[in-house]
Amino acid sequence: MKKIFVVLFLSSTLFTFSQSQDSVILRKIYDQFLTQNKCYDNLRILCKDIGGRLSGSPQAAKAVEWTAKKMREAGADSIIFQPCMVPRWERGQKEKCQLYLKNSKTPANLSVCALGSSEGTGAKGVRAPVIVINNFEELEKFGEAVKGRIVFYNVYFDHTKINTGEAYGKAVVYRAYGASKAAKYGAVAMIVRSVTSATDDEPHTGNMRYDTLLSKNKIPAFAVSYKGADDLLASLTKDPSLEVYLESHCRNLAPVQSFNVVGQITGTSKPKEFIIAGGHLDSWDNGEGAHDDGSGIVQCIGMLEAFKKTGIKPKHSIRAVAFMNEENGLAGGIAYAEWAKKYNEKHLAGIETDAGGYSPRGFGIDTTSGLYDKVLKFKDLFIPYNLYAFDKEGGGADLQALEKQGVPGIGFDPDTQRYFDIHHTAADTFDKVNKRELSLGGAAITSLVYLLDQHL
Amino acid sequence: MKKIFVVLFLSSTLFTFSQSQDSVILRKIYDQFLTQNKCYDNLRILCKDIGGRLSGSPQAAKAVEWTAKKMREAGADSIIFQPCMVPRWERGQKEKCQLYLKNSKTPANLSVCALGSSEGTGAKGVRAPVIVINNFEELEKFGEAVKGRIVFYNVYFDHTKINTGEAYGKAVVYRAYGASKAAKYGAVAMIVRSVTSATDDEPHTGNMRYDTLLSKNKIPAFAVSYKGADDLLASLTKDPSLEVYLESHCRNLAPVQSFNVVGQITGTSKPKEFIIAGGHLDSWDNGEGAHDDGSGIVQCIGMLEAFKKTGIKPKHSIRAVAFMNEENGLAGGIAYAEWAKKYNEKHLAGIETDAGGYSPRGFGIDTTSGLYDKVLKFKDLFIPYNLYAFDKEGGGADLQALEKQGVPGIGFDPDTQRYFDIHHTAADTFDKVNKRELSLGGAAITSLVYLLDQHL
Repeated sequence: MKKIFVVLFLSSTLFTFSQSQDSVILRKIYDQFLTQNKCYDNLRILCKDIGGRLSGSPQAAKAVEWTAKKMREAGADSIIFQPCMVPRWERGQKEKCQLYLKNSKTPANLSVCALGSSEGTGAKGVRAPVIVINNFEELEKFGEAVKGRIVFYNVYFDHTKINTGEAYGKAVVYRAYGASKAAKYGAVAMIVRSVTSATDDEPHTGNMRYDTLLSKNKIPAFAVSYKGADDLLASLTKDPSLEVYLESHCRNLAPVQSFNVVGQITGTSKPKEFIIAGGHLDSWDNGEGAHDDGSGIVQCIGMLEAFKKTGIKPKHSIRAVAFMNEENGLAGGIAYAEWAKKYNEKHLAGIETDAGGYSPRGFGIDTTSGLYDKVLKFKDLFIPYNLYAFDKEGGGADLQALEKQGVPGIGFDPDTQRYFDIHHTAADTFDKVNKRELSLGGAAITSLVYLLDQHL
Repeated sequence: MKKIFVVLFLSSTLFTFSQSQDSVILRKIYDQFLTQNKCYDNLRILCKDIGGRLSGSPQAAKAVEWTAKKMREAGADSIIFQPCMVPRWERGQKEKCQLYLKNSKTPANLSVCALGSSEGTGAKGVRAPVIVINNFEELEKFGEAVKGRIVFYNVYFDHTKINTGEAYGKAVVYRAYGASKAAKYGAVAMIVRSVTSATDDEPHTGNMRYDTLLSKNKIPAFAVSYKGADDLLASLTKDPSLEVYLESHCRNLAPVQSFNVVGQITGTSKPKEFIIAGGHLDSWDNGEGAHDDGSGIVQCIGMLEAFKKTGIKPKHSIRAVAFMNEENGLAGGIAYAEWAKKYNEKHLAGIETDAGGYSPRGFGIDTTSGLYDKVLKFKDLFIPYNLYAFDKEGGGADLQALEKQGVPGIGFDPDTQRYFDIHHTAADTFDKVNKRELSLGGAAITSLVYLLDQHL
């Protein structure tokens, strides 16, 4: 018994010592982010000098070069460009949506945008009556009645959800799959109510997918602003036979080569084992990709800077990963996982930051690997920094392929309330990101990477 | 033993039943706020149609009438106007701050504003050399060396504090008391670096107090923007003998009568016992008082609406309180407490919402009365709504007088990261408030009032 007591006493002392040492390092990381880290200035450059950077665009190519340079400046000792073929979709000139009512001479304009991957109508446009569809069951019920019509998916964002991601997930399936489902019954175009927590006149783009089995019939797909959707409904009440004219000039071009950018600080004792933190470098074309996901990119570059500036030398190799093509293909996430497999790289964990540069709340941690219980032990270290939510989830879209190889994923979870107001719109701009909130997120991610490096 | 088990079993069942009933009601309150509550629309009116509403101003008087009307519409069965005498301070025409360097012909302008309660320079202005003071110890050391000079308190907001309120508290004493301390040694005017987490060109006003013992020498007091402070420092490095010209036209007029507005839903079984939730109706004159504290006002009006619309009939009397004069005198808080004493009103608890309409984090609860432990029992009910921080604090400035009478105070705590970026500036406008965040705050406050009503 005596021996056991001694051991217990010792291990408890060591644990306390280790926790207090860890808390000193976390304080250093936070201080670096809150007073010196360049993440906010970097975001300004990425948003203002490069701007929207859809996969395959010249801006995306510029962002690849810029990211590598910034990772090097931040302290990466090696940079890897991981090639991936990405789709190339172009929006072309601004979309049109005009309402033609029976007794009105001049058509009203609604605020719309083409959905990513959608085919365009071309200059001839599409003009047809509209049928309102509230869910897929209703579409199946209407069946052939949608033939020759524009299907309008009037699906609302559920404002009662506290976690806005949940409301998004429920509504976004209509944006993603609605076109092909409507085309099956002969619809000539598709409009979806923007998937947003806002109630304004901003249309929200985002990716859609044609069902390849029915690829003959790729009808053009649009999102209409919340206000535009309300106007359309009101007009349909007045005149159910009204016609809508839609015009879009978007095109799907041949895929082009692009790259993930990986900045590494090589580990001192276990250089062949990796812990990564990543966001996605591509963004939609209509805004500046500030919260989605410029924030994640500059937080990960900031992590390299914080490791260097605070003098932390990781045991394992630490990587900041700028994934390409999260928005419309996930080619970068897949390429990263293939690279890891090809070079037999052992990954201990991956953190993804792709939920905006808002005030940190916590992390969502994979539960299949035992990592959850380990991370939960760090909770007390994070409480002074207002991180309290250690949920059972996992990484985001870019880590999926790596997770399939058994690597445990972690998602960084900031406050979700404002995110879907501006997500995928022209309003996702630098000025929407708060310097302290962004920096606190970077510090939280860096702190977790540090703790994983120490204790895994 | 058997009996004890039965009792334990029963009480545990009852507790579970009660918690589950409570959780149903909380869900109703949140749904009402997230889908129907008028708090956001009310804030738009208060900010845009009434605007900045400093105590004693015509806008403040208009706000009093408007609040009473809105409380009645929301469902208050009685409205009380509690009179209080408030100071009347007017900013007058825009302030000037010009830098005169030795070798420069045209003076540079710095962005400044007069501090609340400050005397103005009048049209003649004040022109003098500047002395930089980094803390009060330094002022004491310099002593008579400040004579004939403008004292510039170059005190920084500590960005490493996670709770920005802490950083504010440390720096704000220079704004509040710096003028009289400098006047004691013969300074002719005082400028303070704006007390803010931002690093922009916006000057932040706020109240200051002259030491009445030295009231002969009321020197004019200004805040300079963060950027302006940096420019001043850089110029002083180039030319330590530079002179600054300051001009302000603010005036302290005779106090005028104003009012707290109290909207009450009278309790069904204990009408003479009160639970209150309040914010302050007055604001600084330069902005719209959106986060400070229009948000608090509309959340409390929203509470009345939510009680009515969800059909909750409180046992105790519930009050929404719009305090007057929090910014420059606290006359309303004092008047409320005096009223309560005069009419022998028994107050069970008071909640104050005056930290902005940001995403809720939790509550700070008084620890002297046993209330803390009671509120802590509600924690599990709040976790689904992302409220997790139940700190040991108490109410804010407006509840102080009531707390002195033994009434336990609670402060509603939203996220603090953005608040001091715009606090007391022209940028505290309606567009800075997010609809969901504001509504979630209103729901959190209403939920706590409901739970207190049920369980106190």
